[in-house]
Amino acid sequence: MESAIPEHLAKERTRHRRIPDDYAPPYPSFSARYRPGVTRVAMAYFGLQVRPGDEAAAEPALAAMAAAFGKGEGPGHWDRARTVDAAGFVTILSIAYWDDPDAFRRWYAAHGAFWTGTGPGDDRLGTFVEILMPGVERYETLFSSADRAEGVAVVSDGMSGMVQEHAYWGGMRDRIPLSQTDAMEPQGAPRIVEADGVLKVVPHGNICLIRSGQDWSDTDGDERRMYLEEVEPVLRAGMDFLRDEGLSCGCFANRYMDVVGASGGATDKTFGMSWWTSLAALERWAESHPTHVAIFGAAMKYLMTVGPDARLRLYHEVTVAAADEQIFEYRNCHPATGMLRAGGG
Amino acid sequence: MESAIPEHLAKERTRHRRIPDDYAPPYPSFSARYRPGVTRVAMAYFGLQVRPGDEAAAEPALAAMAAAFGKGEGPGHWDRARTVDAAGFVTILSIAYWDDPDAFRRWYAAHGAFWTGTGPGDDRLGTFVEILMPGVERYETLFSSADRAEGVAVVSDGMSGMVQEHAYWGGMRDRIPLSQTDAMEPQGAPRIVEADGVLKVVPHGNICLIRSGQDWSDTDGDERRMYLEEVEPVLRAGMDFLRDEGLSCGCFANRYMDVVGASGGATDKTFGMSWWTSLAALERWAESHPTHVAIFGAAMKYLMTVGPDARLRLYHEVTVAAADEQIFEYRNCHPATGMLRAGGG
Repeated sequence: MESAIPEHLAKERTRHRRIPDDYAPPYPSFSARYRPGVTRVAMAYFGLQVRPGDEAAAEPALAAMAAAFGKGEGPGHWDRARTVDAAGFVTILSIAYWDDPDAFRRWYAAHGAFWTGTGPGDDRLGTFVEILMPGVERYETLFSSADRAEGVAVVSDGMSGMVQEHAYWGGMRDRIPLSQTDAMEPQGAPRIVEADGVLKVVPHGNICLIRSGQDWSDTDGDERRMYLEEVEPVLRAGMDFLRDEGLSCGCFANRYMDVVGASGGATDKTFGMSWWTSLAALERWAESHPTHVAIFGAAMKYLMTVGPDARLRLYHEVTVAAADEQIFEYRNCHPATGMLRAGGG
Repeated sequence: MESAIPEHLAKERTRHRRIPDDYAPPYPSFSARYRPGVTRVAMAYFGLQVRPGDEAAAEPALAAMAAAFGKGEGPGHWDRARTVDAAGFVTILSIAYWDDPDAFRRWYAAHGAFWTGTGPGDDRLGTFVEILMPGVERYETLFSSADRAEGVAVVSDGMSGMVQEHAYWGGMRDRIPLSQTDAMEPQGAPRIVEADGVLKVVPHGNICLIRSGQDWSDTDGDERRMYLEEVEPVLRAGMDFLRDEGLSCGCFANRYMDVVGASGGATDKTFGMSWWTSLAALERWAESHPTHVAIFGAAMKYLMTVGPDARLRLYHEVTVAAADEQIFEYRNCHPATGMLRAGGG
């Protein structure tokens, strides 16, 4: 067993973990490990928004984005996912990860900035970017299995052994290296400004992003049925609540996404991604809101029933970003898109 | 809104609360307040154990205990409750509270020590005492309503206004004044010794006691039905788990008690009382064990349905006691009684 905080990021603490040193989690989980030379990563969400009837119009833009990822210092990993937002617009995210923010910046200037700069050249399409470039002390990852990375973990150097800080409320915070010395409280509030037809968010400090996914590819029989019939509907209800009423508990925006396969088809993977005022706001929702208590209860019942042979895979990545580690830009999007809701939209 | 930690017990912190300073709990709760002159209390559980067929034989002993409470510097408050333990024995607790441990010690020497000393003089009866004399920095209380005290709060000087540290995991710890500077980790392990026919527990430091009660006297109609049909059975299942399998998660003993009225009859009040290796062990069970997750889910559903007009009353008191603040003695009891289970019984 090892700490989720890698040795090279361990600091003399001014803040304590929530667990005693002899705490033993009841089941294994794992965290992505980066070589010490990686000090910062980039997580770039390239969003496309289109009315359902016009979805075919998105294809050229999505192809352009895929082509851009292949150019220059493109991402170490990217994936794509789809949802329909509260306003009824199809939203497709192309999500790309770099383990070198300088490489990202060069790539972005040359091949990525068009997305909300000139735009894809079709008025039926809205585009946006939601980008974080956090220091490695500002995010954590957690996986139920060590043998299939997702998200930012794909650009890591591998998985840890079993980590100690999980399976208790507060583990998320305790896994973020910065929690050793910092409460990560929100600083200021975001506001929206317009420039050249693009709405930009002037960020606040310590915004929180979670991407939390599930992969039932390997399940079958009763396990698959239990996930799809007993867990997924409860998860969806919680995701819908955050999408529709999240502002009431500090969630600016939530998207419950279906992962799109390499050939564009459906997969057995989903994830929720959401933007929060603060890590504390996410903690409070997760720990006490009826919608998440229900998710937690359904997941716990599932795992108790299926036992250690469960083939459902769960993972998440949680980031608390400084104000200067964020880029939010929206072109031709409706006013309740993503972080634009921080403006009251 | 005020801190659950009264001003005169506030200290310069070396350990942080789990909430930011601007945290606002979603519903009100209250804590008992003691005048600053009260620095230590006594919580004395006088237990009686008898086979169900012999229950009538308990009456003289219970009457003697009631009479003793009325003598000298007797308790500021006492109550009585009944359960049947895992071995099938009726267990009746007479629970008494003092706000002055010196007064308690004098009373105990004169009027209380007979209980496990000479005993009640009937071989059909087992007797035991489980006594804590904690400093006021070592316990906390929480009430859903400010107008009906229970337990140690009855010997307090009244209720606080609405307190901040509740309705989140970790609130229990954050309400205990000692948490400002101490992790309250367990020190050593209890062991059992025999002397003069009495089994005594040589205590370990930072044992944790919770008394957690519910009072549905004021409910009627749908609310009463919901409590009795949807909440109580889930609560009972959790209590049974702790009684039968609690050692697996650090719970030495649990008793789910029916409060007995002043005239000996049934009431609409119950409480669970349990002894734990540590506050952390209690936290882990409460936060993640399926039996308590189910209780939490049922209670939350109940409160969401009934809303702010709920007439169910909930309270608890949680103590973390130093080794020299504890007395455990068992006379003529079966080997799995209370803290005797700490000896592997």
